[in-house]
Amino acid sequence: MPVEASEASADRVGDLVARVLDADRGAVARLISVVESGGAEEPAAVARLYPHTGHAYTVGLTGAPGSGKSTLTDRLIARLRRDGARVGVLAIDPTSPFTGGAILGDRVRMQDHATDEEVFIRSMATRGHLGGLALATPQAIRILDAAGNDWVLVETVGVGQVEVEIAGATDTTIVVVNPGWGDGVQANKAGLLEIADVFVVNKADRAGVDDTVRDLTQMLELSPARAWVPPIVQTIATDGAGTDELLAAIESHRAHLDGGGLHDRRRARVRDELRAIVLARLAERAADVCGERAFDDLVARIQARTIDPYAAADVLLQHE
Amino acid sequence: MPVEASEASADRVGDLVARVLDADRGAVARLISVVESGGAEEPAAVARLYPHTGHAYTVGLTGAPGSGKSTLTDRLIARLRRDGARVGVLAIDPTSPFTGGAILGDRVRMQDHATDEEVFIRSMATRGHLGGLALATPQAIRILDAAGNDWVLVETVGVGQVEVEIAGATDTTIVVVNPGWGDGVQANKAGLLEIADVFVVNKADRAGVDDTVRDLTQMLELSPARAWVPPIVQTIATDGAGTDELLAAIESHRAHLDGGGLHDRRRARVRDELRAIVLARLAERAADVCGERAFDDLVARIQARTIDPYAAADVLLQHE
Repeated sequence: MPVEASEASADRVGDLVARVLDADRGAVARLISVVESGGAEEPAAVARLYPHTGHAYTVGLTGAPGSGKSTLTDRLIARLRRDGARVGVLAIDPTSPFTGGAILGDRVRMQDHATDEEVFIRSMATRGHLGGLALATPQAIRILDAAGNDWVLVETVGVGQVEVEIAGATDTTIVVVNPGWGDGVQANKAGLLEIADVFVVNKADRAGVDDTVRDLTQMLELSPARAWVPPIVQTIATDGAGTDELLAAIESHRAHLDGGGLHDRRRARVRDELRAIVLARLAERAADVCGERAFDDLVARIQARTIDPYAAADVLLQHE
Repeated sequence: MPVEASEASADRVGDLVARVLDADRGAVARLISVVESGGAEEPAAVARLYPHTGHAYTVGLTGAPGSGKSTLTDRLIARLRRDGARVGVLAIDPTSPFTGGAILGDRVRMQDHATDEEVFIRSMATRGHLGGLALATPQAIRILDAAGNDWVLVETVGVGQVEVEIAGATDTTIVVVNPGWGDGVQANKAGLLEIADVFVVNKADRAGVDDTVRDLTQMLELSPARAWVPPIVQTIATDGAGTDELLAAIESHRAHLDGGGLHDRRRARVRDELRAIVLARLAERAADVCGERAFDDLVARIQARTIDPYAAADVLLQHE
């Protein structure tokens, strides 16, 4: 019976993937749910999708809550649609258990495109399995890629290292800040500087914009020399000002990468992903090992001081 | 030759542990360095120490930078010394690469006890190996325990989840806040509430102390009922006010745990530690696997789209 069940599951995945390749919106949504929850069907789905990927150009947008990322994404979608491009959007919300309401509010604005058949917008939150969003995101991007989107935009709330990593796992990464940025904590600046290919100062009609641009310029000047220096684009997402300049900056970075960097950049991502999958697989094994009856017996022996914790770990891993 | 080297290493560890059991301060310092760097000698050292542990009562102190934790720790040391107790202190600094200077400044104050043979103070920062401080700290506590200390105080900067976990991995956990606490971000409150056995409002001579005590009281009232309700102690660490009350709160929590909770609490810690060791061991294996030549070949094949990332991970893990 398990074999039949597994065959039925493979058929279902095969059918879903075939429909994704036909750009069936329902199938895209359903397959993203599969990778979001990290179900048993995920590896089979990725295996079937993978040969059909590599077409889409991926752009990450990250920034603090309230920086205007979603409105900016919205403008970018409209701009890309005007050129006839097909656009997929992933709105990643690593903090959703805490800030769900506020961020879902932002999402609503993007629903302007909800009736446009050539725009697919999907939000993703933390999924159940080990490896988390950092592993689920590349798979979801592949689904949108295989479905024939020319662009995949990945929007994340840039509040921590993981979110920065997710946004950085794209071909061009946009870091969105606001006037006054940098007055507060310095903590995350280095991480953002490392991943940014384009800086956007959004809400550029507000006081302090010149100071923020000057601060960013200085930060970039002080950082190690690199082949691509991130341009700083000023936007007012609420009225669309600067959207053309932002797309030009993205295209300019894309042209730069076409000079050879894109292959290397994608290879680095593949390396990171393969490492993450290996680690997640081993972590699953660790969870299995620690779920055994032997685990509880060893805990009791450790507490009785008849074995030490390192020796107990060796006992568990021997059985494996 | 490797066998001889390993025997020599075992002899060295055996000698160090024997001297730790004799409360040799130099040996204690050296063995803590071994666990801090996560060297190959660590498991052997823990195996030899472990039967001699379980005597010390452990107290964690956590709080934001500048909350006065170190001065409070200092007062607590002096108070415990007055009763003739032997005291070991671990000052854990997970953020040291960034804030080394400021926190080391605090450390200096504790050096008042540097000439006291019955007080051992040691700071620890991030060590090299997988598992990090969350694994190194219990081993360092064991060294201070085996060396005959009656109390082991573990002070950490409570800025993130890991630090909260370290401070929470003690028999009694003290969370130090200041008047005005809670005016800002709510983010970490739930985590602190979960680990706190005693709340200290330090700098209680400052404005806003009553508001902070009221806020804490309300938070505790709103949280799920539990057998032990953390008392709120007001202190002025700079002049020592409230130190007796703090020790009384600790002793009261200790007496509560002696009613049976201590065994369960320590068992939960053993479970967490065993899980962490298993995971760290498997992560080391992952690093080995990903260091192989096969890894680079597979990355190239993934990029050429002749294999997908999940299938490539399976290939790597088969060889293992």
